[in-house]
Amino acid sequence: MSTNKGYIEQNKDRFLDELFGLIRIPSVSARPEHKEDMIKAAEYIKASILTAGADKAELKSTKGFPVVYAEKMIDPSKPTVLVYGHYDVQPAEPLELWKSPAFEPEIRDGKIYARGADDDKGQMFMHVKAFEMMNKLGTLPCNVKFMIEGEEEVGSPSLKDFCKENKELLKADIILISDTTMIASDIPSITVGLRGLSYLEVELTGPNRDLHSGLYGGAVANPANVLAKMIASLKDENQHITIPGFYDDVIDISMEERSEMAKAPFNLENYKKALEIEDVLGEKGYSVIERTGIRPTLDVCGMWSGYTGEGAKTVLPSKAWAKISMRLVPNQKSKKVDKLFEDHFKSLAPAGIKVKVTSLHGGEGYVSPIDTPGFMAASKAIEEVFGKKPIPTRSGGSIPIVADFEEVLGIKSILLGFGLDSDAIHSPNENYPVSHFYKGIETIPLFYKYFCELKK
Amino acid sequence: MSTNKGYIEQNKDRFLDELFGLIRIPSVSARPEHKEDMIKAAEYIKASILTAGADKAELKSTKGFPVVYAEKMIDPSKPTVLVYGHYDVQPAEPLELWKSPAFEPEIRDGKIYARGADDDKGQMFMHVKAFEMMNKLGTLPCNVKFMIEGEEEVGSPSLKDFCKENKELLKADIILISDTTMIASDIPSITVGLRGLSYLEVELTGPNRDLHSGLYGGAVANPANVLAKMIASLKDENQHITIPGFYDDVIDISMEERSEMAKAPFNLENYKKALEIEDVLGEKGYSVIERTGIRPTLDVCGMWSGYTGEGAKTVLPSKAWAKISMRLVPNQKSKKVDKLFEDHFKSLAPAGIKVKVTSLHGGEGYVSPIDTPGFMAASKAIEEVFGKKPIPTRSGGSIPIVADFEEVLGIKSILLGFGLDSDAIHSPNENYPVSHFYKGIETIPLFYKYFCELKK
Repeated sequence: MSTNKGYIEQNKDRFLDELFGLIRIPSVSARPEHKEDMIKAAEYIKASILTAGADKAELKSTKGFPVVYAEKMIDPSKPTVLVYGHYDVQPAEPLELWKSPAFEPEIRDGKIYARGADDDKGQMFMHVKAFEMMNKLGTLPCNVKFMIEGEEEVGSPSLKDFCKENKELLKADIILISDTTMIASDIPSITVGLRGLSYLEVELTGPNRDLHSGLYGGAVANPANVLAKMIASLKDENQHITIPGFYDDVIDISMEERSEMAKAPFNLENYKKALEIEDVLGEKGYSVIERTGIRPTLDVCGMWSGYTGEGAKTVLPSKAWAKISMRLVPNQKSKKVDKLFEDHFKSLAPAGIKVKVTSLHGGEGYVSPIDTPGFMAASKAIEEVFGKKPIPTRSGGSIPIVADFEEVLGIKSILLGFGLDSDAIHSPNENYPVSHFYKGIETIPLFYKYFCELKK
Repeated sequence: MSTNKGYIEQNKDRFLDELFGLIRIPSVSARPEHKEDMIKAAEYIKASILTAGADKAELKSTKGFPVVYAEKMIDPSKPTVLVYGHYDVQPAEPLELWKSPAFEPEIRDGKIYARGADDDKGQMFMHVKAFEMMNKLGTLPCNVKFMIEGEEEVGSPSLKDFCKENKELLKADIILISDTTMIASDIPSITVGLRGLSYLEVELTGPNRDLHSGLYGGAVANPANVLAKMIASLKDENQHITIPGFYDDVIDISMEERSEMAKAPFNLENYKKALEIEDVLGEKGYSVIERTGIRPTLDVCGMWSGYTGEGAKTVLPSKAWAKISMRLVPNQKSKKVDKLFEDHFKSLAPAGIKVKVTSLHGGEGYVSPIDTPGFMAASKAIEEVFGKKPIPTRSGGSIPIVADFEEVLGIKSILLGFGLDSDAIHSPNENYPVSHFYKGIETIPLFYKYFCELKK
């Protein structure tokens, strides 16, 4: 047994207890009522990193929630790893679908069930514990900085400015992030591509008040019907997005690269079975992996209008709303897509309906090269712990700040993610395998080791 | 001043106070938490009718909320008027849009503002006060029965059975109902046509849980997007409903009758101004009055899916719902339309989406002839009080039980309505002009008088 494995074995219950303490703080950044919890969570992490051996740790204020910054500088001539993560979580609703309370972690079948178990408290906390271990065992080979933010789930509105204002402080050779997935415990992978995001809210207003659907129905444009029609028209029968100019900046992926991607193991029957769907649906001409990996898409994340209570209220609603997310691919620009969407969407409205479009969230896609010391170190570290060479994959998700890091700080990121698709992040019953929590803590010091070796 | 006018003048404050007492009871039939309020409202009306001079009044139980039945039989050889009304009201939500509390009546600019001010507490209570007045003044010319139900706003699910079981008790020459509108205070009208109703709820299920819109978006059918597309396809570009067979039973109205209807005063500019809309929208080839009067229609009354809170949650929802109301014209059968809708709607779903359709409410349309003693008596009574001969009109609304009354009891109904379109029934800030409340009380005894004369 390696020294690392021994240390983890000796401290495994404490590691979990400490993670659970963090999870129990409902740090939901989207909800104003959790403001105090946000600070509690940030303080919890600050204290944890200090205890783990940092020279200093502090809460750095931003326009929004503070960033936890910490560092341990052992030798300015050695490489510096900057760990990024986030302490905020998604709202837990709908609460009634959770089998155990969202903010009271419970282990069932070898998995931690709780909001944030994976995204990102579980994954981020592995870095704190790996850091502790390297300090305790005297194996820390380089300088370490931590930047743990509290606004990732609401689009990191303050972090880009924070980076601009703290370029010197954040200087590093590589940014290390655990906030993504691997294909399976026995099929390790590393995400090398992320999608960008445009997330907008639309508000349609018809008549100035809710009307009686009998007295007015048929004569007045109904914003709910109109919203349905406008949303429907955003995709054609091939699930191609119809917004003019939407695909202009999409770079076609070569057939060669596509056939490389097709080698990643994927079982369509298992995928459908896991979701209990009869069939998949997506853009014509692309596989499931391609639809989420290399193609942009448009999804309604929320939609509401009129009477949604029990029974039958015969109302012609005054207003209708939708939240619409577009996942973008590298080279598409979020702000440009916002504008294309807004112009097109407004043009779809008939007379009698006013339309307001608000951008809520956005960010650019990212592709990481695989011939760098960072990627190679991650690959070696994972292979050593998981027993197989990881496959480079593109994820459908977005971590917009990764593109910003490169733009503002000029530093590449490595997405050393240990989550699984079945972790149900952003959903009820979010979970994270206990084994991945420990394997992550085992992998991280190996990354540090190989990265320093390869940087020489 | 007539004796009636004098009596109203002397008692006007008390009449309003008594109505307000009824309005303050939040008898929302659609909401289980108002069960006790429903009984309170029924008891209040029972007591009011007894005090007004009925021989007997009682709560008759049904499968749902009780019917208040009361009668005064002065002479079996004289005609009998059966007054129908309802003591339940629509839910008051959204509460934040009310300028004064929904269940605390307030008079502003000569109007009573409250849920139920018009529909139907205000209109129904005029009959109780007119009955009191005829008793006190010794002018009651005929027998009177009251049947005031508590489930009109949820589709009168028990009333048809109640009628079947009480045919003898409910025997009458005419049913008198005040639950409709007139065009304006200075353009009185009588509703002679009502639309029928099919009200359904649809539930779409995609994946078995809410998914991360980044990881799955583009690959899995999104029930919110699919619902939008399915709803959009229910009407074509001419706002014609596309459900196969939907128009089969619609009787075309002759051009002659349509040009009669076109004589009713209607100012499109005022209509648009009142609703603050740039233009109207409806079935091609028909006027606004025709679109709500003689043509069937389809409206979304409610629609919901996914995340509807503040901010941006990037979720691909598992489910999406809509409440859809179709207003039908005479000869269309609600149950048949339900089935046509369900079959067609289910056929629209792609693989990967399961659809459930539930019928929540239904009823048939109604057309009343205008050459009957009932219509002529109503016309004379209104002319005497409002100073102008009323125009016969067709309303877009539905009182499904009117068709049932004719079918089960074999009795015609007269829709002696004093509401105005601006009363905002089913909406926030529902209101009813105080002057109409008093004019209604003045008109009703004249109806009794002329009806008895014409029946001779």
